[in-house]
Amino acid sequence: MPFSERIDRLKSSLIREILAAAQRPEVMSFAGGLPAEPMLPAVDWSQMPASLGQYGMSEGEPELREVIAAQARLLGVPCDASQVLILSGSQQALDLASKLFIDPGTEVLVEAPTYLAALQSFQLFGADCLAVAQEADGPCLSDLRARLARHKPAFAYLIPTFQNPSGVRYSEAKRDAVAALLDEFEVTLLEDEPYRELVFDEGMASPIVGRLRKASWIYTGTVSKTLLPGLRVGYLIASPDLYPYLLRLKQSADLHTNRIGQWQALQWLGSAAYADHLAALRSFYRERRDAMQAALQEHFSELANWEVPQGGLFFWLALKQPLDTRTLLRPALAEDVAFMPGEPFFVDPERNPGYLRLNFSHVAPERLSEGVRRLAAVIRDAQAARAA
Amino acid sequence: MPFSERIDRLKSSLIREILAAAQRPEVMSFAGGLPAEPMLPAVDWSQMPASLGQYGMSEGEPELREVIAAQARLLGVPCDASQVLILSGSQQALDLASKLFIDPGTEVLVEAPTYLAALQSFQLFGADCLAVAQEADGPCLSDLRARLARHKPAFAYLIPTFQNPSGVRYSEAKRDAVAALLDEFEVTLLEDEPYRELVFDEGMASPIVGRLRKASWIYTGTVSKTLLPGLRVGYLIASPDLYPYLLRLKQSADLHTNRIGQWQALQWLGSAAYADHLAALRSFYRERRDAMQAALQEHFSELANWEVPQGGLFFWLALKQPLDTRTLLRPALAEDVAFMPGEPFFVDPERNPGYLRLNFSHVAPERLSEGVRRLAAVIRDAQAARAA
Repeated sequence: MPFSERIDRLKSSLIREILAAAQRPEVMSFAGGLPAEPMLPAVDWSQMPASLGQYGMSEGEPELREVIAAQARLLGVPCDASQVLILSGSQQALDLASKLFIDPGTEVLVEAPTYLAALQSFQLFGADCLAVAQEADGPCLSDLRARLARHKPAFAYLIPTFQNPSGVRYSEAKRDAVAALLDEFEVTLLEDEPYRELVFDEGMASPIVGRLRKASWIYTGTVSKTLLPGLRVGYLIASPDLYPYLLRLKQSADLHTNRIGQWQALQWLGSAAYADHLAALRSFYRERRDAMQAALQEHFSELANWEVPQGGLFFWLALKQPLDTRTLLRPALAEDVAFMPGEPFFVDPERNPGYLRLNFSHVAPERLSEGVRRLAAVIRDAQAARAA
Repeated sequence: MPFSERIDRLKSSLIREILAAAQRPEVMSFAGGLPAEPMLPAVDWSQMPASLGQYGMSEGEPELREVIAAQARLLGVPCDASQVLILSGSQQALDLASKLFIDPGTEVLVEAPTYLAALQSFQLFGADCLAVAQEADGPCLSDLRARLARHKPAFAYLIPTFQNPSGVRYSEAKRDAVAALLDEFEVTLLEDEPYRELVFDEGMASPIVGRLRKASWIYTGTVSKTLLPGLRVGYLIASPDLYPYLLRLKQSADLHTNRIGQWQALQWLGSAAYADHLAALRSFYRERRDAMQAALQEHFSELANWEVPQGGLFFWLALKQPLDTRTLLRPALAEDVAFMPGEPFFVDPERNPGYLRLNFSHVAPERLSEGVRRLAAVIRDAQAARAA
């Protein structure tokens, strides 16, 4: 079969296989990034206009674009509605950016670790991904400068707020420094912020795209983590030099985003009900974060190091005795526990063994501790077997 | 700005600019393929389960896949639900097929004319499109054989039922002959059928994919033409050798199709209410088809030749004195009439002047005749200006 060259780079997704396995109701899954079922808000469709059944604009619904632009301006992102493109989930921003920038061999700068599905999308199009080491407060700046001085990446893909998988939130100082470096080397920024609203403390920092003076940029977000992922409504906001190309690529991909989801998102964004919902969501997830922290302290203190995440959906564990965590998946599932091995989040998985990503939003607290305990036992068994 | 090479091939869409221009309420638009507003069915959302707010499967909702597979089997397509992939509109099938098959220089076989947005998608990925002349009952078989004997296209893209733009429906004999040729040369078929249900006579023929014995295939359809395009729900069915790749490409593109639209589609497909709605839709569009035929006979008999379409949404006119119909667009819009120039539907637009695609579903019959009259006047003026 004469497939395209890119199909040689199309990897089967570990996420996918894990989620499929984790569909069994008895499995305690720390693997995905699923919102907690009890926190999916009840929504009302009764007022939706019938006219939304018709084809819509590729840009998205005008009112929704206005609201998103207004909220972004409050975060310091210099934009108006004409720069907003509504997407079929923010995953689509990765596909469109890949199409816009990546030929086989094109260099793209990413964090190490970075979002698995972004890596897969960039690599599918043939990108040569350059990884910059992640520290507790953001990327290693000397590493970043060295990469930019020696290479000319088409863009830098960064997740500065509660990064998936590491949970890192860039400090103010690092945000400024990253913006200055991207300006200096004139490298486009793709800033991905699905987790901004899932914050458990007061230490929020504004987006990096709002700190740029010269570099082009794409900022992307979603309602999937705060409202309903099943709507498949995300968005990007782009600097005016990039927007027309992204719009045409969107049109070519799927004409436009579904209008019923856009209408529902519009009912929520900026409303008092949404503010209440976000407050409840933060409180709910903070409790689950705390429950997992307690369980980890009980069962993982000797096994791993980690930071307590101040937002987002994940703990990121570094095993004190690293081993390939992909080999733990099958024994864990045999114990009805699912987790996400850390290796696939790195450009070079083989050189980065020993990390685990644990989602804390999905499993109820009363089962969570048991799941963590079983996972710790699986790791101890594996380490004992290696030592033997 | 270091864009990818494919951006050099990203054309601004004439469709897009026309639709934008045609948004003015005073414009009589024969340009798009929009369903008639009065025929958008009223839908009920009150019974939708809240659980559909959660992330879903990349394959689509299991029940919807079952229904689509069952209906396809009734049309002679040998498949089960495991071969059905729900899409964010059937446009997405073109994007996924492009990713699966097309590198720069890959040959793809298409009809002349063919669907504009398909041509744009294939060419965006760098395809070298080979055009086979369309006759009143399907492709010219000697031309098709000659192409297949001399070339090895990655796939053939065909729209055998009420083709967009030509309105052609392949005869039974041509369907069999095309299937036999694709089998003989082992060329994959991408069969696009958005208009199958919009039929005005009894002369239906089953899909070509069901007639294949060896060749791989993708069959794609949508609810956009018969239910609500704003839902953005389409699907593909693929031979088992292609399905796993298409699924992973779908996952990479947008994770999964919105679940609320899938749920609504499921309420309709196969129901008695849907059968009633389809009957009403056919009757409504048949009337509009007849109204446009009458208007064309009055105003275009001296100007153009055409066949009366037995389904679909379009008349396809061939001017007796060909000229570049793209030059007519501005004067037509000045008269508040929009239409679709024929040139962009051809691989080689410059060598195929003088065709117009006119949609008959969108403009109300009482305004339709006036629009057709004005368009004829614009053409006469242009031809007089050329002769002068």
